Amino acid sequence: MKKILVIGAGRSSSSLIKYLLENSEKENWKIKVGDMDKQIALEKVDGHPRGEAFEFNALEPNQREKEVKECDFVVSMLPARFHIEVVKDCIRFQKNVITPSYVSNEMKELNDQAVEAGIIVMNEIGVDPGIDHLSAKKILDDIEEMGGEMTCFESFTGGLVAPESDDNPWNYKFTWNPRNVVLAGQGGAAKFIQEGQYKYIPYTKLFRRTEIIDVEGRGKFEGYANRDSLKYRNIYSLETIPTIFRGTLRKVGFSRAWNVFVQLGATDDSYILEGSKDMTNRDFINSFLAYNQHDSVELKLRYYLQIEQDDVIWDKLVWLGIFENTPLNLKEDATPAQILQQILEAKWSLAKSDKDMIVMWHKFGFRINGENREIHSSMSYIGTDQTYTAMSDTVGLPVGICTKMILNGTIQSKGVQLPIHKEIYEPVLKELEKFGVIFRETEVEPVLY
Amino acid sequence: MKKILVIGAGRSSSSLIKYLLENSEKENWKIKVGDMDKQIALEKVDGHPRGEAFEFNALEPNQREKEVKECDFVVSMLPARFHIEVVKDCIRFQKNVITPSYVSNEMKELNDQAVEAGIIVMNEIGVDPGIDHLSAKKILDDIEEMGGEMTCFESFTGGLVAPESDDNPWNYKFTWNPRNVVLAGQGGAAKFIQEGQYKYIPYTKLFRRTEIIDVEGRGKFEGYANRDSLKYRNIYSLETIPTIFRGTLRKVGFSRAWNVFVQLGATDDSYILEGSKDMTNRDFINSFLAYNQHDSVELKLRYYLQIEQDDVIWDKLVWLGIFENTPLNLKEDATPAQILQQILEAKWSLAKSDKDMIVMWHKFGFRINGENREIHSSMSYIGTDQTYTAMSDTVGLPVGICTKMILNGTIQSKGVQLPIHKEIYEPVLKELEKFGVIFRETEVEPVLY
Repeated sequence: MKKILVIGAGRSSSSLIKYLLENSEKENWKIKVGDMDKQIALEKVDGHPRGEAFEFNALEPNQREKEVKECDFVVSMLPARFHIEVVKDCIRFQKNVITPSYVSNEMKELNDQAVEAGIIVMNEIGVDPGIDHLSAKKILDDIEEMGGEMTCFESFTGGLVAPESDDNPWNYKFTWNPRNVVLAGQGGAAKFIQEGQYKYIPYTKLFRRTEIIDVEGRGKFEGYANRDSLKYRNIYSLETIPTIFRGTLRKVGFSRAWNVFVQLGATDDSYILEGSKDMTNRDFINSFLAYNQHDSVELKLRYYLQIEQDDVIWDKLVWLGIFENTPLNLKEDATPAQILQQILEAKWSLAKSDKDMIVMWHKFGFRINGENREIHSSMSYIGTDQTYTAMSDTVGLPVGICTKMILNGTIQSKGVQLPIHKEIYEPVLKELEKFGVIFRETEVEPVLY
Repeated sequence: MKKILVIGAGRSSSSLIKYLLENSEKENWKIKVGDMDKQIALEKVDGHPRGEAFEFNALEPNQREKEVKECDFVVSMLPARFHIEVVKDCIRFQKNVITPSYVSNEMKELNDQAVEAGIIVMNEIGVDPGIDHLSAKKILDDIEEMGGEMTCFESFTGGLVAPESDDNPWNYKFTWNPRNVVLAGQGGAAKFIQEGQYKYIPYTKLFRRTEIIDVEGRGKFEGYANRDSLKYRNIYSLETIPTIFRGTLRKVGFSRAWNVFVQLGATDDSYILEGSKDMTNRDFINSFLAYNQHDSVELKLRYYLQIEQDDVIWDKLVWLGIFENTPLNLKEDATPAQILQQILEAKWSLAKSDKDMIVMWHKFGFRINGENREIHSSMSYIGTDQTYTAMSDTVGLPVGICTKMILNGTIQSKGVQLPIHKEIYEPVLKELEKFGVIFRETEVEPVLY
């Protein structure tokens, strides 16, 4: 019997733990689920005979060492910055390990040690990063095999509310960490390359430079640029591709309205808003507007950001309650981003019956035999409920499937890996299809400038 | 004979060293001027019999200790972050010390030790900070003495080109560190309070929320908000004042044009612009604009930032050469801010015959005997040449004068000090007048909302 250690039983681990437990009998696994909060681990294991929940502080070296030593395989679902110590222990005790998070430079540097220890350290195998790699690399490899030369790669992913639960003017609800949504795009310009020309979009323009994407069966979305598309040239071996762009999807109209908060400075997390403890929603918005004894907050905002009286974004703003005299009731002064998050959480939180949705869309432009061709590939996936969300499924299932493939020897690679090789993406994508994570590929007539 | 150690002989030290040397005979001083680059120190001392130039690395503890020990008084003209170690040595060897820089928290914490050592550590006695403190605190104290209650304090300073050298469409040239000009306003929202309401302006709106100031004899200027006006409530004992605002002056029209660079992201210093090494000015601007095979950089920029065809900012942009195919000729890829600085330096550098100008303007609103009153106080000062600039004079003269006042016992205070007490501002302001640094005070009819 193989012992699998799952570290972290939070929201993102639900589907993973379910998958592992459901496969545990057939594969002869024991699943040990450790979390700082034992109660959460207990709920996820739910009395399964092959599961065991325990209190686990992965930051405590002695306990971590003991648990890693005793198991056969480690799945680290910790916040990204905590993986490194776990992986170092895995190298020491020669245990394969998997994380859904972005591989850090520090992690990459462990490659030689991991190879030497004869283990695989698999990273970036959630949804984004993860399923995006699997699905994109599959087509990229196909095109290469056909002898095609890539001219353009675009890729967009969005965590959104499912159509059946989409009942507010923003067509958006928080389906994941709200803080990350409020801070999205901050910390440097978005970088990409188009027709061989480097392009840079500063945060202040990010939500005004969107691209409209039509996803088969799901309608129109808009995509804003992710921070760094350039690094994917290297990851996907597309060093000389003239156009590469990655972005985040929202329903059409979101970004232009969100830009109001960006322009006001309401998404800033870098300073404490003095006096905010005693503010109302309205005071908060007013703190970003010029003083005037007579003018209303509404008119000052319209004038400042040149929002015409019949602009559709106005309904979105009003609906959020930002002009209401609702006290913020903060315990202490907070940053603008923290305050905005609180205001949004009152409106954008999922109701109990709400479902979420993951949408992914890739575009592949290539030349073959002197001909320009274009393939689109898209996937959308709707969650089951508030525990087995689309986000939890699309993060957890690839992690779980890959765990199985490593344990049963389907995946043989060693070292610090990403799921960009056929040995990995092919079996994982195949099993994902059984769960409804299905990519539709269509070839379209390329539109050239 | 008293030995004065001047640390740092760069541009900002010229007028200071001149002042000290000119007073050295009468006051019986010896002036030791140390700089990493001995040549610079030699030029500033210029063979004066009471001066001595030497190579000095203030970061080298042994040399620093030796020099501080041997002198009677230390003037630290180092970059702000290096003062602290000098001051620690001054405390150890009980030497009075003066710096024109903002007092850091670390410096403030040395107050008790400085008092115990029986020395004064005088800070913020250049121009801004410095002359702004002296001139503002004088009137604030006068109003308090009259029994007035402050309702509003505004203060603006600008380092500009003198009217006789003002010959470009921006009405601006670099009269000080160009890098600081390019980065001005970054790193957090501008904070102030108006009529009791906290106000916050994000960087992206900073140059669109200017105030027009009429300075007697110098015409109209615009002021944009400085980073933190709130802290001056504490410094000036104005804890309950409903309005306090500090800002930076430019000639009218500058900020709206500068905002083009802010909106493009061209002032960003947080990332390296990949591919910039081989770019031209035009490529640089184009890297912030959407790709299109057919449209010109000019039209894309006009459309992106909605610059109408007859807008006066267009001439300013064209004049800078940003649309020209001039190679940047960088040694390696650089940040947008570094590249913009290079483009600006080719156009905004002072010519040999150019003079600079410092302009300062304060507004004091107060209530006395149930009556609202308002005083304006302004100063403008034009430099002599490119060595004895207005900036160098207005930084160096208060430092030099204060040095004299401490050495001759006029100033008796001990501890970590700012020049906000009558004992300091009164004699320093009085002597500054002899050099033409003269504030004109006028009472005006207050305009109330």
